[in-house]
Amino acid sequence: MHIGILCQTVRKPLCLTVMSMNMTVIGTLKSYPVRMLSVTSRCTMHNSHHSTFDTQVQLGRHQVSSSAPVMPSQAFSEFDDASLVAEIGRQGDVIKGLKAQKKSKTEQQPYVDRLLALKNELAARLAKNNEKKYDRSALEGLLLKRFFYAPSFAIYGGVTGLFDFGPPGAALQNNLINLWRKHFVLEEDMLEIECTNLTPEAVFKTSGHVDRFADYMVRDVKTGEIFRADHLVKQVLKTRLEDDFALKSGTFDKKKVAKGKPQPEQLKSEVKAEYEMVLESLDNYQGDDLWKLMQKLEIKAPDTGNDVTEPKLFNLMFETYIGPTGQFKGYLRPETAQGHFLNFKRLLESNQGQMPFASASIGKSFRNEISPRQGLLRVREFTMAEIEHYVDPLKKDHPRFHKVKDVVLDLYPADRQLQGLGTVRMTVGDAVAKGVINNETLGYFVARIHLFLLRIGINQARLRFRQHMANEMAHYATDCWDAEIESSYGWIECVGCADRSAYDLTAHSKATKEKLVVRESLPEPIIRDAVVLEVKKAVFGPAFKGNAKYVMGYLGTLLANGEEWDEVKLKDGEISWDTQKLRDLQEKIKAGGGSTTVVGTDGKNYVLTDKMIEIVGRKETVNVREYTPNVIEPSFGLGRILYSLLEHSWWIREGDDEARNVLSFNPAIAPTKALILPISSNKDFNPFIQQAADSLRREGVSTRVDDSAASIGKRYARNDELGTPFAITIDFQTVRDATVTLRERDSLKQIRQDIPTIVSVIKDLAEERITWADVESKYPAFVGQDLSD
Amino acid sequence: MHIGILCQTVRKPLCLTVMSMNMTVIGTLKSYPVRMLSVTSRCTMHNSHHSTFDTQVQLGRHQVSSSAPVMPSQAFSEFDDASLVAEIGRQGDVIKGLKAQKKSKTEQQPYVDRLLALKNELAARLAKNNEKKYDRSALEGLLLKRFFYAPSFAIYGGVTGLFDFGPPGAALQNNLINLWRKHFVLEEDMLEIECTNLTPEAVFKTSGHVDRFADYMVRDVKTGEIFRADHLVKQVLKTRLEDDFALKSGTFDKKKVAKGKPQPEQLKSEVKAEYEMVLESLDNYQGDDLWKLMQKLEIKAPDTGNDVTEPKLFNLMFETYIGPTGQFKGYLRPETAQGHFLNFKRLLESNQGQMPFASASIGKSFRNEISPRQGLLRVREFTMAEIEHYVDPLKKDHPRFHKVKDVVLDLYPADRQLQGLGTVRMTVGDAVAKGVINNETLGYFVARIHLFLLRIGINQARLRFRQHMANEMAHYATDCWDAEIESSYGWIECVGCADRSAYDLTAHSKATKEKLVVRESLPEPIIRDAVVLEVKKAVFGPAFKGNAKYVMGYLGTLLANGEEWDEVKLKDGEISWDTQKLRDLQEKIKAGGGSTTVVGTDGKNYVLTDKMIEIVGRKETVNVREYTPNVIEPSFGLGRILYSLLEHSWWIREGDDEARNVLSFNPAIAPTKALILPISSNKDFNPFIQQAADSLRREGVSTRVDDSAASIGKRYARNDELGTPFAITIDFQTVRDATVTLRERDSLKQIRQDIPTIVSVIKDLAEERITWADVESKYPAFVGQDLSD
Repeated sequence: MHIGILCQTVRKPLCLTVMSMNMTVIGTLKSYPVRMLSVTSRCTMHNSHHSTFDTQVQLGRHQVSSSAPVMPSQAFSEFDDASLVAEIGRQGDVIKGLKAQKKSKTEQQPYVDRLLALKNELAARLAKNNEKKYDRSALEGLLLKRFFYAPSFAIYGGVTGLFDFGPPGAALQNNLINLWRKHFVLEEDMLEIECTNLTPEAVFKTSGHVDRFADYMVRDVKTGEIFRADHLVKQVLKTRLEDDFALKSGTFDKKKVAKGKPQPEQLKSEVKAEYEMVLESLDNYQGDDLWKLMQKLEIKAPDTGNDVTEPKLFNLMFETYIGPTGQFKGYLRPETAQGHFLNFKRLLESNQGQMPFASASIGKSFRNEISPRQGLLRVREFTMAEIEHYVDPLKKDHPRFHKVKDVVLDLYPADRQLQGLGTVRMTVGDAVAKGVINNETLGYFVARIHLFLLRIGINQARLRFRQHMANEMAHYATDCWDAEIESSYGWIECVGCADRSAYDLTAHSKATKEKLVVRESLPEPIIRDAVVLEVKKAVFGPAFKGNAKYVMGYLGTLLANGEEWDEVKLKDGEISWDTQKLRDLQEKIKAGGGSTTVVGTDGKNYVLTDKMIEIVGRKETVNVREYTPNVIEPSFGLGRILYSLLEHSWWIREGDDEARNVLSFNPAIAPTKALILPISSNKDFNPFIQQAADSLRREGVSTRVDDSAASIGKRYARNDELGTPFAITIDFQTVRDATVTLRERDSLKQIRQDIPTIVSVIKDLAEERITWADVESKYPAFVGQDLSD
Repeated sequence: MHIGILCQTVRKPLCLTVMSMNMTVIGTLKSYPVRMLSVTSRCTMHNSHHSTFDTQVQLGRHQVSSSAPVMPSQAFSEFDDASLVAEIGRQGDVIKGLKAQKKSKTEQQPYVDRLLALKNELAARLAKNNEKKYDRSALEGLLLKRFFYAPSFAIYGGVTGLFDFGPPGAALQNNLINLWRKHFVLEEDMLEIECTNLTPEAVFKTSGHVDRFADYMVRDVKTGEIFRADHLVKQVLKTRLEDDFALKSGTFDKKKVAKGKPQPEQLKSEVKAEYEMVLESLDNYQGDDLWKLMQKLEIKAPDTGNDVTEPKLFNLMFETYIGPTGQFKGYLRPETAQGHFLNFKRLLESNQGQMPFASASIGKSFRNEISPRQGLLRVREFTMAEIEHYVDPLKKDHPRFHKVKDVVLDLYPADRQLQGLGTVRMTVGDAVAKGVINNETLGYFVARIHLFLLRIGINQARLRFRQHMANEMAHYATDCWDAEIESSYGWIECVGCADRSAYDLTAHSKATKEKLVVRESLPEPIIRDAVVLEVKKAVFGPAFKGNAKYVMGYLGTLLANGEEWDEVKLKDGEISWDTQKLRDLQEKIKAGGGSTTVVGTDGKNYVLTDKMIEIVGRKETVNVREYTPNVIEPSFGLGRILYSLLEHSWWIREGDDEARNVLSFNPAIAPTKALILPISSNKDFNPFIQQAADSLRREGVSTRVDDSAASIGKRYARNDELGTPFAITIDFQTVRDATVTLRERDSLKQIRQDIPTIVSVIKDLAEERITWADVESKYPAFVGQDLSD
């Protein structure tokens, strides 16, 4: 939910992400102070709680000390790109420290040398990066042409952040969902539910979304243009610093300033330092502070130079009104999770009260992003698959953990991120044993997510699990790991997996007074010491008369759960006394020689004596343990996974005539499993086309017939672009001996068999019971098509 | 879309629906004039077009004539319930007519006798109906208890019209969707797409929803309470008529009037007649007329007696704002269809330009109902599955029609509804041949819908296809049939199937200037006579000088499509001249002796001579035919189908100890296919439970283990309530010989085999490759469980 995947506005801490996500910044590095790369990272909202952090810690300032620094012995190759940038900053700070300590040039030299070497390494990597820059636009062109997806409402001018899935995209997503269901819901006996998108305000009041799921925005006072406040400050200060750098290095282009506008001046060093400080801590500014900051820095709208309005919070939820009164406010859910929690009681009943168990849900979520970009990665409406696994907080082991303990993961723990180190490879068994991952259940799901992503075709080398840093997590979360997949946009969070403790159920329970707990019969009853208060009505009543209720109200404050006085509940043991509070009262009465003064719920004083009440200890037998379960939440952004998969599946086949796009989907994921194509429009082929198509359809294998007039090469090429793994070709030999060829998309290898055999082979391939290698080993290769008539 | 299923506010014409949907009205018939049953039927919106109709035609007024009426010879049994009500009205009118003609009592007597007989028949049926009244609350209790579905946000007090699906409900819906995909998308090679729920206002402006997808509402001026205006008028007038009837029959209960309020008085006959007239034609009152009517009738809020406000249209779409400006209005789609139409061009390309083809989409739709009731049948958020089948308007035959032509349907054509007759049974082949169903493609889909509904388990006897009456259909629609399923709510429209002509594509094309057409190479070029206008620039230019553009503008009005002047398009043949207009101009010039006066686009007169332009006939070769396809639209309300299926699947098994609920889902539809249960908690059973569960899971068969402490009978019962068709029981014999029993839910029959055999049998049963009868014939029956230890 609140884990990063839903926090679409989150940007990654200063690690490889910044490098790859923001190629342009990297690309202009040479005309740009390295320190300017320290973009602060910000998480709009982790669930309901604002969690801010900035990356200055990564720049190592805290490591500057007056004692002589130890020269790091780490090889440069151990740094990933972003860590390298961080290390450059850190090295610069070290040198500053040496200068501050008035160390000699000779003493400084090794550190300066290392700084230069680090910079050279970075420059070399940048050059290499730019060279092999991913041609994303070519892929996007292909995806649009084949209608995997396209901007929604294009003929009406489009709406940013909304996309429609065309036939191959929708099929791909359906296949993803089906595999997800098989891998998680069926395999783990999860309880799948479907909750509504429309949600009344009260629910998101409790979850905190109404108050805190928001960004600050400002308007140009004259044009009304809208900016996200923090983005605007950042943009303005960056421009000022860039201009300053260019002015100082003599590379400033005066022509870029519009006529009549003043040329920028060099910044004083204290101003520059202030800007840098602000950029690194921008997320700490909220509301009034942010507005004061903007006024102090004289932040204007960049294009017009006009003033901007005071920052106002803009809630990212889509608002609407349910029913005709116009007064019942609702929102489109920004996550599916709340629906699970609200149904917890029914779900637990459905599971016959047994723990642990999980609910699962696949559905839409909506976020009114201020300025969505990055295609499918940041959209206003998207499909999520979320699991809420409810577990006893005292038993976070997992019965099936042994089945995954040897799964090897690339983990990126918080401490390694802080140290600027890269990922570390270990088994999930080791990770849990060493405390890298908090508990077995969390580890189990991390491993299962890993296996799912590999199964659908994500490249293992481009998959890692990044742990949230302490300041990135919601305060109640125990541990959180994001599955990040690398694409041309950098490492993108595609699945979050968080241990959310008992936070959500507790919050909703408090708001609704509905108990959302598990009651478990204890294997053996526990006898415990209890202290109870008994009211001697014969004395109590006459003493207080009409005011008795206020004194009773006071007694109610001595209950354990802060619940209201309820004699029945008290008698039934559903509420109990707070031992400490009773002991305190007893002490007070004792100290007061048998009486003490208490404050009634009417605010007046009353004298309470040991004749009116009695506080006694006694043995209590407890047969049932009642607890609020903890929740482990794996949360999948299907659009992000789908896009990453498209990038991982795409390659170019260099051909005799021209290069061709291929999307190498696994058979289980491929939108269409088999293409049927006659080698020409000869009518004799029709019965065979029919036979193959009908048989495959009967077997439930998704098939397309391509009997268009295009050349067979063009039709194969189209097939490859759609990622169809298998093609049946019907030629003149088919008419003679009823055999057809089967072509495999990636290898271009073919076999030739009769139609029933080929159909059965395709079904087995599509259901991934066999591989193409199995087919090749069983049937002879067929070389060359029979094009003769 | 606009077909009735989406028109959730539509009520059925006065046929059986009214009877069954509105039991209370029927129930109070005796204290109520029969004529009062003529509830007008109203369709809020058929697509964008308001289509109103009322049922007075069914009451036969138009059949009153001054000639002697022929006594109908129809047997009463031929009337369904509602037709019987209509016939009573008609018979009353006949008698009125006779009275008006001053026929003698003797002449009137046979007609009066028949009226009485008709009334007796109705009374008898009512008594019978009340007797076997469906115990819907028992079913609803079961569905809630087993969490098929439940009101959303229950712990927050709930929101009417919103429901969450629990595990069995969600699984049922998923299975429905999977079968739907197999039956339609896969079987018909449809192009499945997924479009966004959020939709910008412009789209629904074009479709007409912004302006017309609305109901009138009023408020109590003091309390602010909201009423649907037509419902309020109806309620108030009905109360007045009921009171009048009670007063006149001496059954009025004075105590029902609040103290201080005036007692009602008997109505004058002209007032009563007016009320009846208004009730029958209420839907003809819109806006001002409705307000005037309400003022004239002195309609007040019923509980408070306060005035109400002027009626205001309340749009049933949920409104929201996209992006941060607060100015880009959007709606949640009330149907999925528009997304198909907007993507038509890409879809046609995806289909390589070939016609016909269909797009399909499964997704949510949203309607802000004023007062949703009837459980899943009328909700604010629901899942739809819609197909848009694009077809050449000149070729509405269907290549696979022969495959369905013998499917037998219960049809309820418009003329039989008018005549008060029941359904008629015929093959779809006959229906199309006889013109009952408009065309083959429409007939094909009606038959396919029929087959789908039977396949998922809808009772054929409770399924009919009702044709829309002329005044029920949107003006552009050619024909429309609703699949209606009978449940305790009456006959409910669950699938609509309409031929929507070229309406939608044309409307969007016009609004966006985007051509949404098919261009088809003609098999042979057509040579046709064309008339063209040529401008003699040497004369034209000098004659008009600076005003030439206005005259050219005039010439633009002579183009065929009303398009703007565009020389390039004209040259490319993309626009052509309107032959008639050119001929007319030619005539005028001729009549004017070589010149005529025309009005330029500046509004001024210009003289045009035959020296300036030449109008010539010539042969044109046309290679391409361009047309806007027609759309056949089957549209499924999955929630309604699901609810009907629940009613059709539910029965009570009378047992030795107690009656038990059973939901007899088909294996393919059942939420869980198999239950595994050990006969006791003996640990020796565990490996066998594991083996069975793992094997079934591997085969993708949805399974649950029930090892709870409940008795085996209780666990079977729970199983039956969830509709799980098969149960594997592990007992002490299992430990000895590794066999288990397999129990079938409906027959309670069992077989006993080893686990691999049972697993394979269940897989075949779940995928409906075999039936239980096949199993029984292959394996010996097993009688009696081994309960010994």
